[in-house]
This record gives sequence, structure tokens and C-alpha cells, in this order.
Amino acid sequence: MEIAGVAGLPEIGPGDDLAALIAGATDVVDGDVLVVTSKIVSKAEGRTVELDDVTPSGFATEWATKWDKDPRVVELVLRESRRIVRMVGPVLITETRHGFVCANSGVDLSNVERGYAALLPLDSDRSARRIRDIIRARLGVTVGVIVSDTFGRVWRRGLTDVAIGVAGVAGVVDLRGTADALGRTMNVTEVAVADELAGAAELVMGKSTGIPVAVVRGVDPAWLRDAAVAELIRPPAEDLFR
Amino acid sequence: MEIAGVAGLPEIGPGDDLAALIAGATDVVDGDVLVVTSKIVSKAEGRTVELDDVTPSGFATEWATKWDKDPRVVELVLRESRRIVRMVGPVLITETRHGFVCANSGVDLSNVERGYAALLPLDSDRSARRIRDIIRARLGVTVGVIVSDTFGRVWRRGLTDVAIGVAGVAGVVDLRGTADALGRTMNVTEVAVADELAGAAELVMGKSTGIPVAVVRGVDPAWLRDAAVAELIRPPAEDLFR
Repeated sequence: MEIAGVAGLPEIGPGDDLAALIAGATDVVDGDVLVVTSKIVSKAEGRTVELDDVTPSGFATEWATKWDKDPRVVELVLRESRRIVRMVGPVLITETRHGFVCANSGVDLSNVERGYAALLPLDSDRSARRIRDIIRARLGVTVGVIVSDTFGRVWRRGLTDVAIGVAGVAGVVDLRGTADALGRTMNVTEVAVADELAGAAELVMGKSTGIPVAVVRGVDPAWLRDAAVAELIRPPAEDLFR
Repeated sequence: MEIAGVAGLPEIGPGDDLAALIAGATDVVDGDVLVVTSKIVSKAEGRTVELDDVTPSGFATEWATKWDKDPRVVELVLRESRRIVRMVGPVLITETRHGFVCANSGVDLSNVERGYAALLPLDSDRSARRIRDIIRARLGVTVGVIVSDTFGRVWRRGLTDVAIGVAGVAGVVDLRGTADALGRTMNVTEVAVADELAGAAELVMGKSTGIPVAVVRGVDPAWLRDAAVAELIRPPAEDLFR
């Protein structure tokens, strides 16, 4: 398996045809998986907000003041959430409308013009499908596409990139019922391949190197199928930490 | 970055010199990172237990019977834990003596001879260091080594491989204070590179293909430094879900 960053993309702005720009910058082949950071998807889809246009609620202002945060950003975090999971000290963990549980509803100021915040794409599966469709139309090549974002973990330090949208590549691969190397039938082994692919891609992008797209070559062809990121979201009924 | 499985390793048993076997099966070069699944480390270090030798407590027997589990395995899970984090329905999430929070204390029956269970290595950093030292002695090559295991996540479905031991490769890379692509100084970006490397390696190993070691080539040389897996363990004081 090979993973390479895609260099040469311009700075992305609202209305840019991101898929066409990616198509022009890569030499993907059938079966590759493109990993695209959500930040440039958000920018292309106009999901950036000028902070001066945001009027924070009293609640947002009070909490932001207490913890030395920008009330306008806190307001955006609350607007982007459908549930507050934890609000402890300066940490705000929410559930987004997509069902992702993450810090600050994915609202992020890094790699965005000063005075602006980026919100997560409204429908990252749709964003991924659009990129996949345009790559196919322009290059005649069928790839999987993962839109990635950077999340924390409950019991482990450090962030990892995970999938927040997929098209043409599995979120979870179910190995239940297949035999392990000793011929035992395994009980439960569902591998979150899209998250592992997103994390692998992060390793070649870095956070400060300005490479927002990577190509993974040599993935198992069985993983390339119709999929939705919902595969990767634990249903609330299974969440032991509500 | 390239990731390749290491083929040709024999079935590993107690007392096998795993490091020497790996050295003989790979053509690693300076700067490579070897990812080794904990299962074969456990086997080589004799961390497998014959279930018939385990006498379950009344507590283990009662709970196992209720949820249709093997009381001897449940007994091992409890013995390997220092704290039960959640015990809901048939799910048993514990904190191991290493500080890892995971299902069943990492006790696992897959890819182990029938009638046996594998326990996590006692000190996976030491296991990783030993492999690194022997690779250096035998091949004159300095590599990073990650011992990996398969963990679940609280809010996401599917398992991913993470690092449970490291030698010569960072657990977490701290990008705080470095500039993002727009020249903004970032607040908090600590990337769990060892976990992303372990997950990437899992993609070429699979769970049922019998490839327990992978080589990652082309990692950032800055990540190759003295390290300990403790970097990746969130201190209890920061755990919002105790």
C-alpha cells in the first residue's frame, strides 16, 4: 500500500470546483482511495463563517468569558450541535447533527483566514460522492473518496484523523464469520477501514504542511463498494457513555 | 509512505526469538517503522494461558453464565484489569495495569490455539525495545518499533489498531506552536502518530491473513525518537468519562 500527498492545489475558496481541482492535480488510477480533509471541502462549499457576523447568546458569552474563549466561536459550536455530551472546564464535547461526537462540533479556526471559522460540511457523504463522480467524469477513473477530520479520543492522548464522509469505499469491513489464521471462526471483528485510511493519509499530510489531499493506492478491492459514514457512527442505543 | 506486510514468519510459540525471526524475514532500512501485532509478542513471551488451568471466581462464573460467556475467560479478563470501566450487558470494558482502557483487558482467543487465551504483553514498550535492539544488532539498521493491538472506540463503530508499545518512534507528535498553512499559530494539535501508524499497518495485515508484522517506510524522521506508550494514555485526571 502506498500513500502520497497531492501537491499543487491552490488555496480553496467558496464556489471553487474542488473535485475538478483535485482531478487536475492527481494521476489516480482505478481502485485508489482519495482522502480529502474536510477543511477544504468546507471552504469550497462555503461553510466558513465570518466571526463578526455571529451574535453570541448570553449562555455562549458567559461560558466563553469564564474560560477565556471567543464567544462567537462558542456560539457556532452550540449552533452546530444537537446535544452537549460534556462541558467540563474549557472542554466542550458535542454531538453534531451528523451524529459525530467530537470537540467543538468540528468548528475550527486553523487553516482558515483570520476572523473566520470553518464548520463541518453539511453532508460529507454527498461531498465525497460529488468528488468521486467528477473524478470519474473527468478522468474516467473510479476511486473511493473519504472526507476526513481530526478527532480526539476518550482514553487516549493525541488526535487522529477519521472519516466523516465516504463514497465508494467501506466505512466498516465486517470480518465476522471469516476464519482467523488458525482456522477458528472469529466472533466479532469489524474493522473501521475508512478511519484507518484517514489516519494513514494524515501521516503524509501533516497539520501545517498545506497538503489537504492524499492518495492511497493498493487497498483491498473488496473494500471498494457503496457506503455511508453512518456505518462508522455508533447508534445511541449502543453508547455506554451517554 | 509505503506499507508492506512481512510474509514468511512461522507460527510463533513460547520462547521463540521473535526479534530474530523478524530480522530474518524483513529487509528493513534505517528509518523504517516495524509494526508488530501484540498477539505474536504475547505468544513469544509465553503470555498465553491454557483455559483448563484457570479457576474462575464465583463472580466471574455468575456473570459469564448470565451472558453466555466462558467463565475462565471472564476470570482472566478480571485478573488482567485494575479497574472495571463499564459492565453493561455482555460488554466488559476495563482498564489494564498498563493504563489502557479497552474491551476484555485485551484478553483474546482469536489466532490462538483452541483452549488457550492470549494476554497482553506485561510491558509492551520493553517488548518493542527488545525487537528494536535485536534488529540493530543483527542487521545494523535502526528502526522504530510499534507493538499494536485492536481496540474499539466509544462513539464510533468498528475497531482500529492502536499502539500499545513503542520504541524509537513517537507516540504523540506535538505540533503546538507550529504554524498552519496560513501562518496562524495553532493552539493544540497533538497527533497520535503511533496510533495512525498502527492503524495503517492493520490495513495490510487484515485479521485473518496471518500477517502479523508490517513495515512502514518513509515516515517523517522527526518522529523517530525515544518514546514510551504512556504518551498515548490519557491521564485519569483528564478523563471526562470516568
